[in-house]
Amino acid sequence: MVKLALLALSGSLRTESYNSAAIGALEELSPDHIEITVGDVGMLPIFNPDLEHTKIASVEQLKDSLARSDGLVIASPEYAHGISGPMKNALDWLVSGDEFPGKRVMLINTSPRAIHAEQALREVIRTMSGIVVERAYVSIPLLGSNLNKSGIIQNTDLASALRAGLIEFCESINNHKGDDNG
Amino acid sequence: MVKLALLALSGSLRTESYNSAAIGALEELSPDHIEITVGDVGMLPIFNPDLEHTKIASVEQLKDSLARSDGLVIASPEYAHGISGPMKNALDWLVSGDEFPGKRVMLINTSPRAIHAEQALREVIRTMSGIVVERAYVSIPLLGSNLNKSGIIQNTDLASALRAGLIEFCESINNHKGDDNG
Repeated sequence: MVKLALLALSGSLRTESYNSAAIGALEELSPDHIEITVGDVGMLPIFNPDLEHTKIASVEQLKDSLARSDGLVIASPEYAHGISGPMKNALDWLVSGDEFPGKRVMLINTSPRAIHAEQALREVIRTMSGIVVERAYVSIPLLGSNLNKSGIIQNTDLASALRAGLIEFCESINNHKGDDNG
Repeated sequence: MVKLALLALSGSLRTESYNSAAIGALEELSPDHIEITVGDVGMLPIFNPDLEHTKIASVEQLKDSLARSDGLVIASPEYAHGISGPMKNALDWLVSGDEFPGKRVMLINTSPRAIHAEQALREVIRTMSGIVVERAYVSIPLLGSNLNKSGIIQNTDLASALRAGLIEFCESINNHKGDDNG
């Protein structure tokens, strides 16, 4: 098995966030040859273009994790019909670097009715030259379910959906290794 | 003249931001009976729904300024075809409060080609029950102009556009004072 490293980001800082729970579940469900690093968008400062080329520890850590990863997993909530501020702020820090372009992205939507933020997120990722892997897309109705990480793992349908998305994602990454665009 | 208080927010922390320059110019161009308070979205922490009802000084200050204001002026850049993270993060902190609903909003777009972020911002403001005053909308091509606050004030066309937008905005506020929706 080819080893793969993924960076996963939740767009919510809420302790009981469904998006963070989904990422936690994905991490536990992933086979041994897939190493998932969970980043923390809450550690970043508010984006300031004047500081893009200074070395801010939390920003460097995010960039390094992304540079070392073969793909990026994003699970992010919709706030007021928009991308969560914390997630957009994290992406803003990555706009000028060379870590993001060509990176494959797996999207997890834990609230399938929330279409505005997902559309906006896709547009931002496209604009940043990231590649959303459509066959790895996972849409699972967690909002209002009261499920935490363990509950998701124990739910056969949800666990299967996450595992299937992850396998598709890793296949896509492996199929495109060596491409010019990463 | 009826006194009016406005809160103005720039979505960019860049020192030479065109959005901040436009707000600075608006402040200087405003007549005496209009008091403009310039807020700072860079002082806010990354949005965390768990902390929405704790008293964070910078968040309280933003909410108090908004509560005391008769209208909100937003000038915000487009980053990667999306709302700037700093601006969305600030709006996220205001989602659950009672300061935003019914508030009239004047939008300033300093980069007229940037339509994605403006559309997204309008959708978010609508979702938060804010009211964008269309006749007060100001679109001025500052991006790439190298103009700072003084340069904008000295440019007759730009200064007129800002002044006209402000007058329309204040008229709209005065016409709707006492409405149920603020």
